[in-house]
Amino acid sequence: MKIEILDSTLRDGAQGLGISYTVKDKLQIVKILDDYGVDFIEAGNPSSTFKDTDFFKQAVKLQLKNSKIVSFGPTRRKDTAVENDVNIKALLETDTEYITVFGKCSLLHTEKILKTSKVENLKMISDSLEFLTKNGKKVFFDAEHFFDGFKLNPEYALECIKTAENAGAYRIILCDTNGGTFSEDIAKIIQSVKSEIKIPLGIHCHNDIDFATANTVTAVNNGVTHIQGTFIGIGERCGNANLSAVIPNLQLKSDYHCVEHIEDTTFAAKQIAEISNIKLPEYMPYVGTNAFSHKAGMHVDGVLKATESFEHISPEVIGNQRNIVLSEVAGSSLIKEKLKKISPDIMDDTVIVNQLVDVIKKQEFKGFTYEVAEASFELIVLKYLGRLKNFFDVEYYNVTATKEILSESLNVAAVKINVKGRTEMAAAEGKGPVNAIDKALRLALSFFYPHLVTMSLTDYKVRIIDSVSATAALTRVLIESSDGLRSWNTVGVSQDIIEASVQALTDSLLYYLTHKND
Amino acid sequence: MKIEILDSTLRDGAQGLGISYTVKDKLQIVKILDDYGVDFIEAGNPSSTFKDTDFFKQAVKLQLKNSKIVSFGPTRRKDTAVENDVNIKALLETDTEYITVFGKCSLLHTEKILKTSKVENLKMISDSLEFLTKNGKKVFFDAEHFFDGFKLNPEYALECIKTAENAGAYRIILCDTNGGTFSEDIAKIIQSVKSEIKIPLGIHCHNDIDFATANTVTAVNNGVTHIQGTFIGIGERCGNANLSAVIPNLQLKSDYHCVEHIEDTTFAAKQIAEISNIKLPEYMPYVGTNAFSHKAGMHVDGVLKATESFEHISPEVIGNQRNIVLSEVAGSSLIKEKLKKISPDIMDDTVIVNQLVDVIKKQEFKGFTYEVAEASFELIVLKYLGRLKNFFDVEYYNVTATKEILSESLNVAAVKINVKGRTEMAAAEGKGPVNAIDKALRLALSFFYPHLVTMSLTDYKVRIIDSVSATAALTRVLIESSDGLRSWNTVGVSQDIIEASVQALTDSLLYYLTHKND
Repeated sequence: MKIEILDSTLRDGAQGLGISYTVKDKLQIVKILDDYGVDFIEAGNPSSTFKDTDFFKQAVKLQLKNSKIVSFGPTRRKDTAVENDVNIKALLETDTEYITVFGKCSLLHTEKILKTSKVENLKMISDSLEFLTKNGKKVFFDAEHFFDGFKLNPEYALECIKTAENAGAYRIILCDTNGGTFSEDIAKIIQSVKSEIKIPLGIHCHNDIDFATANTVTAVNNGVTHIQGTFIGIGERCGNANLSAVIPNLQLKSDYHCVEHIEDTTFAAKQIAEISNIKLPEYMPYVGTNAFSHKAGMHVDGVLKATESFEHISPEVIGNQRNIVLSEVAGSSLIKEKLKKISPDIMDDTVIVNQLVDVIKKQEFKGFTYEVAEASFELIVLKYLGRLKNFFDVEYYNVTATKEILSESLNVAAVKINVKGRTEMAAAEGKGPVNAIDKALRLALSFFYPHLVTMSLTDYKVRIIDSVSATAALTRVLIESSDGLRSWNTVGVSQDIIEASVQALTDSLLYYLTHKND
Repeated sequence: MKIEILDSTLRDGAQGLGISYTVKDKLQIVKILDDYGVDFIEAGNPSSTFKDTDFFKQAVKLQLKNSKIVSFGPTRRKDTAVENDVNIKALLETDTEYITVFGKCSLLHTEKILKTSKVENLKMISDSLEFLTKNGKKVFFDAEHFFDGFKLNPEYALECIKTAENAGAYRIILCDTNGGTFSEDIAKIIQSVKSEIKIPLGIHCHNDIDFATANTVTAVNNGVTHIQGTFIGIGERCGNANLSAVIPNLQLKSDYHCVEHIEDTTFAAKQIAEISNIKLPEYMPYVGTNAFSHKAGMHVDGVLKATESFEHISPEVIGNQRNIVLSEVAGSSLIKEKLKKISPDIMDDTVIVNQLVDVIKKQEFKGFTYEVAEASFELIVLKYLGRLKNFFDVEYYNVTATKEILSESLNVAAVKINVKGRTEMAAAEGKGPVNAIDKALRLALSFFYPHLVTMSLTDYKVRIIDSVSATAALTRVLIESSDGLRSWNTVGVSQDIIEASVQALTDSLLYYLTHKND
């Protein structure tokens, strides 16, 4: 059975704290969602910002394969003629065929927030929908606060959505606007209203009690055929139903059909996170980088024997991948698994393999971790096998952090590198000592490797491993780098945070130089 | 009705990628969970790491108010006499009264992973439980893969848990180990087994399809009285049921009782995240900093007219606060609460109080956090009120980190301080730049304040706040200090990690000098 998907990343998602899209960002996200195959993209509120007005002008010109653009706005204001209402006018002007209109379906909101009468609120709904449908629009009616309103006064909540149906609504979407409703109540309330409404029903959930995904699936199991959410779950307060989990739940684990390209779920989630300038949580269901990672010894052992033993689906189905992680709990079988990927040809030489396992274990004992730092792992292996090309040596560095009372602190680094017998020095100021040495190192290297400018550091993490030795503690630095096409992670460990950072930085540069022609 | 809570942050949580606790971290988290009032703390697997063995030795000596410590391990190995089994022995040696034993309840796992017979698996369960109960232990039986096993072969799954019951299990916990089960199936399966088991049932859910919270609540609504999870949801792959959402869901929105101090939910979540060295997601249900933030104009308007209009509960109930974004009315009640503790006499002067709230908010905007750094908070307040004695100024410092190829890195600091017009310089070498400046600073101060030797730094943590700017990222340093009688925490923030450390160090010294005669 086909379930209609409306993604509201660009509208409800954009209302999330810290989220702000440019028109260009929005157009990029539209393209990703269209490729992925959602039916509707709710893309903004033309009456709230000029940016959205501008976006809609460009969006209607797009040639989309799968998706329809939807604009969003409120019912007409109270005591206003609909044809003079500024919000309704703005909606008409977006030129989209589909429009979402939201209206209050709760007595609390009608009386305390709108401060109007029951009857006027119903008139606001019917006037707005009749006017827009008369003008050729297909209108999704977002029944705001429907579940809370129904708990308060079921007759009135029902009257609101019946009014919308009679005024020509194309779909009626039941909203758990405050996100505080349990699945049991979602099911019960849908059961008691669905016989009263002839047109298709939709669901719109928020995640304030961590039930948004479960409630959306429950609604579908109770007859709803249109679902709303945001692709990576962003939105007001705790966010919206997370479509990157809801869609696989419905399509892979139940008998529903949502989209054509389910195998692009992880890709789409990563791209949207990137454009939204947020880091996709590693542990995110289905699409997180840890979603199919196995760390504890017994889990790893199980997965190597039968993947279904600790995986509810195969990660490839949604474009994610299995990740066997190295950790303090992991034994040598795991290290061998990773060695095989880097250098399958050495696997028959048990002496070499065992020596390498030993090298890695010694590094881990010193505080290194290769759970995420796969690039550093590879460099150690290649170096041990004598296959690592020596692109450069850092002969010397010096970093200073100086501060005089009432002035800004000053960070300066000097570095001397050696490339095949030729030396080069460079100095740089930075925002912090690590930033200074990072800049100096790249500057010196750029004389020999000008294409280094295409790679950049995308993440920098510090962890104190043994914090009880206080300021003399062992420090672990993890760096993520990217050349736009792929990303890699490196690690450094030292009591000296600068040295740990330089280790991770040089590994990152070395890995890039080693693979630049792959 | 009372629901038993078992928190597994220190066991299942520690199996999460990137999570690694020292013994000291573990003891701190035990204290937080005990204060909060969970019934059981599953704290580690003594047979997997030496660190856990060491922890249990210290943990059994703790005087806990509410919680019992639980150790965790597998049933005996196949074809092994239980009294000779190394894992069972390690469990006995932990000296905890309560033990969790996990055993396979799925034919797939029995045959493909354990590679043993149905009968031997049942014997492994009964032998292990009988042996441990005979030795005076109360045993939680974690029925691993119970739901998947039941779907595969209901008779065998049921036989496994009946075997555990007959062998003396104290509780039987039904586990959705792979996290792929829908609430409907959780409810159905519990309904079909609960009449067969006389002892209390528990539930243990993973979040691979984003259902862990919903499934846990569903299980309770179907008669389960013991729940397992991790306080901030960390764990294998996509994590465990997140207790900071499950507990408020049960206690505030349903008729169950879980803990005494529900008002400390947000505080406990923040503390545990800090010790785990992870950033609590802003949008996390109940405890995230955005969970009660209102950004969209209409939502803000609604909340100001009636808070229940866009909030499913009042944030104060779980110790969180409302946050009206882009407005000056932001939640200051928490700051006022803290001010009252430091200086009750100023609370009637609303002008001063509001100015102080403003000062603190500006600091927080810069990246400072006073959740744990109460000493730095107090110093700011005292300084603003003109009540902070000026014990010293740092006129100048210089720290260098130098390294030549193939030698050790060298860290040297020089510092000049001013005490009532008299200056003193000192220099020191250190293990790392922060250690060097720490030593130099104390040396210079010791000429004026020789009793400073009685205080020491006991913990040093670094957090990258804005990691996307990579090596130029904003860095937050937290330092814990102690004089043997009490301990205090201070904070520093800068793009320059040395400067951030010096801020936290000087605050720590200043706090000690301010209070040394208390």
